[in-house]
Amino acid sequence: MTTDASPERLHHWVVTLSCTDGPGIVHAVSGAIVAARGNITESQQFASGDTGRFFMRVQVESPAGRAEFEAALAPAVERWNMDLHLDEVGRPLRTLVLCSTAGHCVNDLLFRQRAGQLQIEVPLVLSNHGTLRDLVDFYGVPFESAPVTSADEKAAFERRVLQAVDEHDIELVVLARYMQILSPELCEALAGRCINIHHSFLPGFKGANPYRQAHARGVKLIGATAHFVTSDLDEGPIIEQNVVRVDHSRSVGELVAIGQDEESRTLSQAVKWFAERRVLLDGARTIIFR
Amino acid sequence: MTTDASPERLHHWVVTLSCTDGPGIVHAVSGAIVAARGNITESQQFASGDTGRFFMRVQVESPAGRAEFEAALAPAVERWNMDLHLDEVGRPLRTLVLCSTAGHCVNDLLFRQRAGQLQIEVPLVLSNHGTLRDLVDFYGVPFESAPVTSADEKAAFERRVLQAVDEHDIELVVLARYMQILSPELCEALAGRCINIHHSFLPGFKGANPYRQAHARGVKLIGATAHFVTSDLDEGPIIEQNVVRVDHSRSVGELVAIGQDEESRTLSQAVKWFAERRVLLDGARTIIFR
Amino acid sequence: MTTDASPERLHHWVVTLSCTDGPGIVHAVSGAIVAARGNITESQQFASGDTGRFFMRVQVESPAGRAEFEAALAPAVERWNMDLHLDEVGRPLRTLVLCSTAGHCVNDLLFRQRAGQLQIEVPLVLSNHGTLRDLVDFYGVPFESAPVTSADEKAAFERRVLQAVDEHDIELVVLARYMQILSPELCEALAGRCINIHHSFLPGFKGANPYRQAHARGVKLIGATAHFVTSDLDEGPIIEQNVVRVDHSRSVGELVAIGQDEESRTLSQAVKWFAERRVLLDGARTIIFR
Amino acid sequence: MTTDASPERLHHWVVTLSCTDGPGIVHAVSGAIVAARGNITESQQFASGDTGRFFMRVQVESPAGRAEFEAALAPAVERWNMDLHLDEVGRPLRTLVLCSTAGHCVNDLLFRQRAGQLQIEVPLVLSNHGTLRDLVDFYGVPFESAPVTSADEKAAFERRVLQAVDEHDIELVVLARYMQILSPELCEALAGRCINIHHSFLPGFKGANPYRQAHARGVKLIGATAHFVTSDLDEGPIIEQNVVRVDHSRSVGELVAIGQDEESRTLSQAVKWFAERRVLLDGARTIIFR
Repeated sequence: MTTDASPERLHHWVVTLSCTDGPGIVHAVSGAIVAARGNITESQQFASGDTGRFFMRVQVESPAGRAEFEAALAPAVERWNMDLHLDEVGRPLRTLVLCSTAGHCVNDLLFRQRAGQLQIEVPLVLSNHGTLRDLVDFYGVPFESAPVTSADEKAAFERRVLQAVDEHDIELVVLARYMQILSPELCEALAGRCINIHHSFLPGFKGANPYRQAHARGVKLIGATAHFVTSDLDEGPIIEQNVVRVDHSRSVGELVAIGQDEESRTLSQAVKWFAERRVLLDGARTIIFR
Repeated sequence: MTTDASPERLHHWVVTLSCTDGPGIVHAVSGAIVAARGNITESQQFASGDTGRFFMRVQVESPAGRAEFEAALAPAVERWNMDLHLDEVGRPLRTLVLCSTAGHCVNDLLFRQRAGQLQIEVPLVLSNHGTLRDLVDFYGVPFESAPVTSADEKAAFERRVLQAVDEHDIELVVLARYMQILSPELCEALAGRCINIHHSFLPGFKGANPYRQAHARGVKLIGATAHFVTSDLDEGPIIEQNVVRVDHSRSVGELVAIGQDEESRTLSQAVKWFAERRVLLDGARTIIFR
Repeated sequence: MTTDASPERLHHWVVTLSCTDGPGIVHAVSGAIVAARGNITESQQFASGDTGRFFMRVQVESPAGRAEFEAALAPAVERWNMDLHLDEVGRPLRTLVLCSTAGHCVNDLLFRQRAGQLQIEVPLVLSNHGTLRDLVDFYGVPFESAPVTSADEKAAFERRVLQAVDEHDIELVVLARYMQILSPELCEALAGRCINIHHSFLPGFKGANPYRQAHARGVKLIGATAHFVTSDLDEGPIIEQNVVRVDHSRSVGELVAIGQDEESRTLSQAVKWFAERRVLLDGARTIIFR
Repeated sequence: MTTDASPERLHHWVVTLSCTDGPGIVHAVSGAIVAARGNITESQQFASGDTGRFFMRVQVESPAGRAEFEAALAPAVERWNMDLHLDEVGRPLRTLVLCSTAGHCVNDLLFRQRAGQLQIEVPLVLSNHGTLRDLVDFYGVPFESAPVTSADEKAAFERRVLQAVDEHDIELVVLARYMQILSPELCEALAGRCINIHHSFLPGFKGANPYRQAHARGVKLIGATAHFVTSDLDEGPIIEQNVVRVDHSRSVGELVAIGQDEESRTLSQAVKWFAERRVLLDGARTIIFR
């Protein structure tokens, strides 16, 4: 909603919250926003029948600074025991990217970041291979690599990840075709802030070389799924999926190239929504406020 | 949101409203809902930067009947000069269908209506041809036809349309491949409650036989657009669009068949959203609360 | 290719063939067509690296009748041990439809058949329920139903299927949401001429109530797969697949309705291609000459 | 088709041809291939009812070198007055890229080229702005820019384009969001080997700022069209089109970003097909042998 003209600088706040559902929540939140001299410019909400949770995302223009805004919201937060997050619209999310040898996802993320299409900043890219150093250098992003060929090296690499998360105040870790399985401990430490991308087929194929299996079975659609990482491999809450049509004439190599395109755009879309605070967790699934 | 267990029968209300945007609207509406002992089960809102209008759609469970609910909302309606509509969720919309000789859209609408996928009731189908009588009979819907081959016949047909709208308290008129141009007077009389379907191409083609033109130009995508009827032919606010991929090997006849599929599903989708009160007008465009 | 004007009646032949790949096949087939005074109007071929098989589909205009055409092709058929099929373009395929209680696929097939979009004729619909009798009657197609609630009834039903296949010279059996698993013997008897439709998700879900599972996991794409029936349940060669986007706000019931739409159009597409002799088997996968 | 094992090096030839349709063409071409000891590995053909032209694309493995292969084809070429092109499969096409200030299409082309997904080589990028110098440098491609703000500068720029085409034996010119209208003379000089990309909407919008118009009208699909450049602005034969769904909540800026994604992938797809000799001209439309 529009506001009266005001000489005060306007903040643009994004509020996301979830709590056990019940009557009066919207009224309380909108009342707090009125109290904080705010105008709602975008608002979405959803009550989940599955979990009994209520979810809300609101963008607000207001002259109120963080302290005033939080104070206005405090009674509602306490009354409904809300899990609430307050942030400035457009603030770049501090994002750590992990990769291996395939550059398509990393290039897509960094190109979009530079083009102003992704509100993230990337203080570091970590890899278990040196392959992508030149690509990452081009975008002016620091790059480190260390081999992961033994249990010890893997433990060291994961310690470096956690250290980097700490050092750079990382809010999101993106596995941009990082071809190592994270330990359950690392999955746990990054729960809800680590996004992975993997290929998807109809029907699904288990085991090695799924593109070869998909080719042998003659699938007509291949795609990609971006999801939160959990210790249950490739089974975390889904954020985004895309597919594209293929036919019998496609070689395995062509299927791989087509699949990579879908991976790039699907991962970038998921990161974009996460950075804009549009992705909320509802048990085993996501609520996406597009 | 859920409610405390209650012996009272629960109503399911859907509220749609629009008004000039301003601070406090959401708070006022949610306050009225709390006052009417209601729980919000679905809510969407949108502030249009183009027109300065605010739009909202809310579904509410409440023991309050219509009178109590309207009384609770009255102060907000007055304060913001709201254009507000209150209805029961799931009430079938009284729908008049107009058609000519092509049955694909009529069949799709009536089949979905019978299958419980479309919350409409169809008291009458009117046509300028007798061709579809058997099809409509099968679904147990009254059918009338009268030729439209002269200005007089056209005027008579349009009077019959308006009479039927009146007789049956019609809330929506669907042009299901009705191949006559409505007079400006009829467009005006049905403004905002008459949906048309037509084929769509990239790029668009003007003049007769667009499928032949599309074939000659080798278009790769053909589709359909469902829109509100205005006196500006085929240029009313768009409700829904779909496309499908074609290639050079398709004959004109195949393009027509493919286009008809898109027309059927696009029109049915538009009617479904309209019947569920998900389509609001914002100047020359629609807000769709999916 | 065009032909010289001729007073003789032109036949429109469709030739499909497969054989072990090797040099000279296309030359031999095109030579035979020249010998039979034919002009190729559509031609597609594919050499499968997986199985070493060569596949071809050719449409030909020719004054030659069946005997002359077969004689011209005979040397090539013998030389390469071809699996060759010769048919008239547009001849309706004799099709048996099996269904249970859900009408969306049956309605779509019969409506398209009547609208001239599917070159099939349906001498009989068999069901294990009486539910769809009225719908099938409307299209003027004979309908029989018999319960399948015991092993004996199932055996009797399957005997009736085979008898009907025999009686009506059935070329294609369509499982239009027929909710019984065929016995391995029946699968075997109908190998390569029985098409099934089932829902598809990314990722796949095993076990009962997949729509509920898909809802719980928050899938973003749901769809349908049409495939040949084999005794390996839902794992036969894929003919066609489609998906459509959904989000968290969809109820299980809405997911079901959306899935049914995809099932209808995917099954009808697969039947259309099969009837036009565009579907060839290459081991575990299909070659689709669209 | 497979070949007998041979110590001779195998060439991989791609033959594309068109001629006035008539009986015996396929037989003659396949005979020539047999004579040149070739095996067909991929073949597509199409007879255009609109123009009476016949089109064919064949990939062949053969020990025959260019001279032997051309000699074998010569009688057929002469007999049917064929427009025939013979090339080695996979040879990178010499491609000149023109751009202005937007980098999305240039980045996508150069990244895919480097990743081995596009069989092109780019000896030069020309621009009327210096903006993209760093991006192009990163890919190690020479970059030149010169302003085009007057008729004289435009003429000089176009002379430089033609000179570069000559100097580098350019086979394809790609307008990767080059925001100047080519002169009719340059269009003519580059006829059939110059591809442009532009945004597409349903329905189309004429005039300035189409994204703003599309936003105002509430279009639900936006996309991109890649087409050959002709002097009839944005009306050349269409090579590829894509669309993506949008809704009322998208700002004009978001529509632009979404449109740019569609432009990138649509242009790269068109360039890929062209480089693989899959795009043939049939009057005002293209035949795409995918």
